[in-house]
Amino acid sequence: MRKTHIDLNSDMGEGFGIWRAGDGVDNDIMPLISSANIATGFHAGDPSIMNHTVGLAKQHSVGIGAHPGYRDLVGFGRRAINAGHSELINDMVYQMGALAAFARLHDMPVQHVKPHGALYMTLAADEDLSARFVDAVQAVNPDLYLFCMDISATYRAAARAGLRTVREFYGDRHYDNSGSIVFTRQIGALDAQAVAEKVLEACVNGRVKTVEGQWLDIEFESVCIHSDTPGALALIEATRTALAGENVQVCNRFG
Amino acid sequence: MRKTHIDLNSDMGEGFGIWRAGDGVDNDIMPLISSANIATGFHAGDPSIMNHTVGLAKQHSVGIGAHPGYRDLVGFGRRAINAGHSELINDMVYQMGALAAFARLHDMPVQHVKPHGALYMTLAADEDLSARFVDAVQAVNPDLYLFCMDISATYRAAARAGLRTVREFYGDRHYDNSGSIVFTRQIGALDAQAVAEKVLEACVNGRVKTVEGQWLDIEFESVCIHSDTPGALALIEATRTALAGENVQVCNRFG
Amino acid sequence: MRKTHIDLNSDMGEGFGIWRAGDGVDNDIMPLISSANIATGFHAGDPSIMNHTVGLAKQHSVGIGAHPGYRDLVGFGRRAINAGHSELINDMVYQMGALAAFARLHDMPVQHVKPHGALYMTLAADEDLSARFVDAVQAVNPDLYLFCMDISATYRAAARAGLRTVREFYGDRHYDNSGSIVFTRQIGALDAQAVAEKVLEACVNGRVKTVEGQWLDIEFESVCIHSDTPGALALIEATRTALAGENVQVCNRFG
Amino acid sequence: MRKTHIDLNSDMGEGFGIWRAGDGVDNDIMPLISSANIATGFHAGDPSIMNHTVGLAKQHSVGIGAHPGYRDLVGFGRRAINAGHSELINDMVYQMGALAAFARLHDMPVQHVKPHGALYMTLAADEDLSARFVDAVQAVNPDLYLFCMDISATYRAAARAGLRTVREFYGDRHYDNSGSIVFTRQIGALDAQAVAEKVLEACVNGRVKTVEGQWLDIEFESVCIHSDTPGALALIEATRTALAGENVQVCNRFG
Repeated sequence: MRKTHIDLNSDMGEGFGIWRAGDGVDNDIMPLISSANIATGFHAGDPSIMNHTVGLAKQHSVGIGAHPGYRDLVGFGRRAINAGHSELINDMVYQMGALAAFARLHDMPVQHVKPHGALYMTLAADEDLSARFVDAVQAVNPDLYLFCMDISATYRAAARAGLRTVREFYGDRHYDNSGSIVFTRQIGALDAQAVAEKVLEACVNGRVKTVEGQWLDIEFESVCIHSDTPGALALIEATRTALAGENVQVCNRFG
Repeated sequence: MRKTHIDLNSDMGEGFGIWRAGDGVDNDIMPLISSANIATGFHAGDPSIMNHTVGLAKQHSVGIGAHPGYRDLVGFGRRAINAGHSELINDMVYQMGALAAFARLHDMPVQHVKPHGALYMTLAADEDLSARFVDAVQAVNPDLYLFCMDISATYRAAARAGLRTVREFYGDRHYDNSGSIVFTRQIGALDAQAVAEKVLEACVNGRVKTVEGQWLDIEFESVCIHSDTPGALALIEATRTALAGENVQVCNRFG
Repeated sequence: MRKTHIDLNSDMGEGFGIWRAGDGVDNDIMPLISSANIATGFHAGDPSIMNHTVGLAKQHSVGIGAHPGYRDLVGFGRRAINAGHSELINDMVYQMGALAAFARLHDMPVQHVKPHGALYMTLAADEDLSARFVDAVQAVNPDLYLFCMDISATYRAAARAGLRTVREFYGDRHYDNSGSIVFTRQIGALDAQAVAEKVLEACVNGRVKTVEGQWLDIEFESVCIHSDTPGALALIEATRTALAGENVQVCNRFG
Repeated sequence: MRKTHIDLNSDMGEGFGIWRAGDGVDNDIMPLISSANIATGFHAGDPSIMNHTVGLAKQHSVGIGAHPGYRDLVGFGRRAINAGHSELINDMVYQMGALAAFARLHDMPVQHVKPHGALYMTLAADEDLSARFVDAVQAVNPDLYLFCMDISATYRAAARAGLRTVREFYGDRHYDNSGSIVFTRQIGALDAQAVAEKVLEACVNGRVKTVEGQWLDIEFESVCIHSDTPGALALIEATRTALAGENVQVCNRFG
């Protein structure tokens, strides 16, 4: 079904100390998105960047979510760590709490949680870990939306438990015929027009062309474009222009 | 005025990964105290230890508080870092939020906040930092008690802003004539009977003998005995025995 | 062939800041061993502990080796991280260099290198990583001994390249019929007499009983007993007594 | 005395994981300098960046030095930490060793050591710490040059002990009448031509204009321009052009 509106989410605050990920253009990207996944300190994000980023999101009426990752600054959370499930749940609870405090400081609700990088992929493939994570989210804040992929253990666990979900379409990643995104630690520069058209096709016709060359139907309530992809700002601008041309509004009214 | 009851607080969860501070006897100390200052990850405490420690506190009906420190695992938060005030406030907000999430997970309120080590001392001496910290606490959770020293910028800032405070008496630290505790990075073994008598004297007669040998009047609503002091369990047991002998009840009914 | 002497190695300096692994008895264990694997900061060990530990080894004429681990303080290097091979080689080179500087400071040679925990197991199973590690060791210090298991890619790579090796027998771990040790993140208390007899059997008769109940021939030039195993000191004392009873001398004369 | 040649040093490899300091233009700056201060992991620099940076320096025949900092990634080593002298010495020994291993890997000598940021300033002001650091450098590698300021405890300690020094002139910092540089945590963009003329004046006439407006005589064997200063590449290019115009050669022939 043709969408009349769509959420656009991006990772924000993925710096540490003096460093900034990608092109360091959070200030330019924030006004263009409707949901911000805010790095919570383990793969990126220090408390002062978090505070700044929450304030920036509020200024642009962008919904905020915790973006917990593996404890791996040097690997940017893109390297799976063979940790126990309890450890990982506790790591995510910790990070969700940290963001919630900054939301309180800015008198803003937390809208969602979206695990980062390799942890997102680990959860997507693990039924037990996903089920335990969903339980933890419900205990900590049952009003949160959980951002996840349509085809994932995470989505299934949330659906079973009655936790609200937002399924994502990855504008800057490739899909294979199984419906999975092709995960990679390094993303090169992408063609903005191609990304914009891919997102538009997904929003208007509900489908994506896979790396094998077939059309795949896809369901989602949010489009993700990563801010650390080189040229991310141009990708997001082109995508917004394409969506506006077809009267698809960017907003975080889910469902 | 002679006290009929007194709070007894101790630092809990001050390990990291496989390591535990002091004698590693949190399980033995927790049933003996009424308030637990839970390390929140910057000077000690990882998410799994925090989760365990909050659960342990709940089991023994002990009030919990965030125990934020400088970002300094290797120095155990005992080394002042020449950080900006905003950085320090954000670091404390982050850590308070992390604990709050584990409290939610265990369906427990957070009772208080007490900065750790060198950060506690930095706050005690800094009017601006204390005022900004009190503002942040009120924004994040206005119901919290702030643990602090009677003679401190922290206490004055909280009093001005109407934030509830609990003033501490340090059973295992020395006082000088100014009413300040003598801060040190290394504490040797202490005589349990001497500590117990010192605490009893403070509870019954409201005074402490200073390192200069004079009696100093002291006001407080909680006694602190550090769990990482060697032999801490014996200190706490002796103190409880002494207090019980004079019908001073250990509980966290402040005021 | 019956051994007349054997090296006895243990992990030393596995603390961080105020924390110490195991029973915190490095001072007692050091005089009883002939080779010390010194934690180099990534899974444990800070520069001040390293400096102390190198000095302690020198005092007792114990050979020292770098004990590099995964960058994982909270997991004590027991969790594999899905890092690239170049990253892991660079991490180990960094840690080897750090130890070498303390050896220079104490005017002592570095005798060996032994990767720690999950990194040791990752190397043992990975031909490419082992080959690249052996190359790096030869470039950094070709005189080092590489501690490894007899049945491992690490041993094979070192043998091919002509790097000197010391094969280990694990006194406090179980073997299966494949000759592999059964890796675990948590070791409970062990019976000192059983460990001592197991080591003696291996030294005198060159064999070990597997978890499946069979005798397995085993070749080694060093016995490892982990210092973070609870009761490690008693295990090492019992082992030394057993070896002395059969005139097997503990020393680091390899080969 | 008019200089015919001068060393030009810059901080290199000040990234961490995916992050890069300044404009991320090490590849462009390296060919223009003669000495590289390589971040060694505590304030910036991870092992893989170190390995890359040493290789890059070798390619351009640039002398390399360890650039040890406070253990403070989030503060980029610009925040003094109230650590004990032994701790700081051990931290620097550790970092010097780490760099030395990469130098061995690339079959390159280590030319120098230069503490970073707040640690450089702490040393400059502390006679005891400087004396102990000089002792440690001589024990670890007596052939190293120690980069320092003319007016500093570090220089005096090295001179007393007979350790070779290279005194620096800071092209991108301001001096006051005492001969000290005005330390700051944040440097804004600088005018390239002004920096170039300042360096030229120092090289040709041996003097600098202070913030108070007076001329101050200054002795030095190296010019430092920080790579994390915004627009650093332009500053270095302008400086080289200015020096070439007066036939001052950039090279690392000290003395």
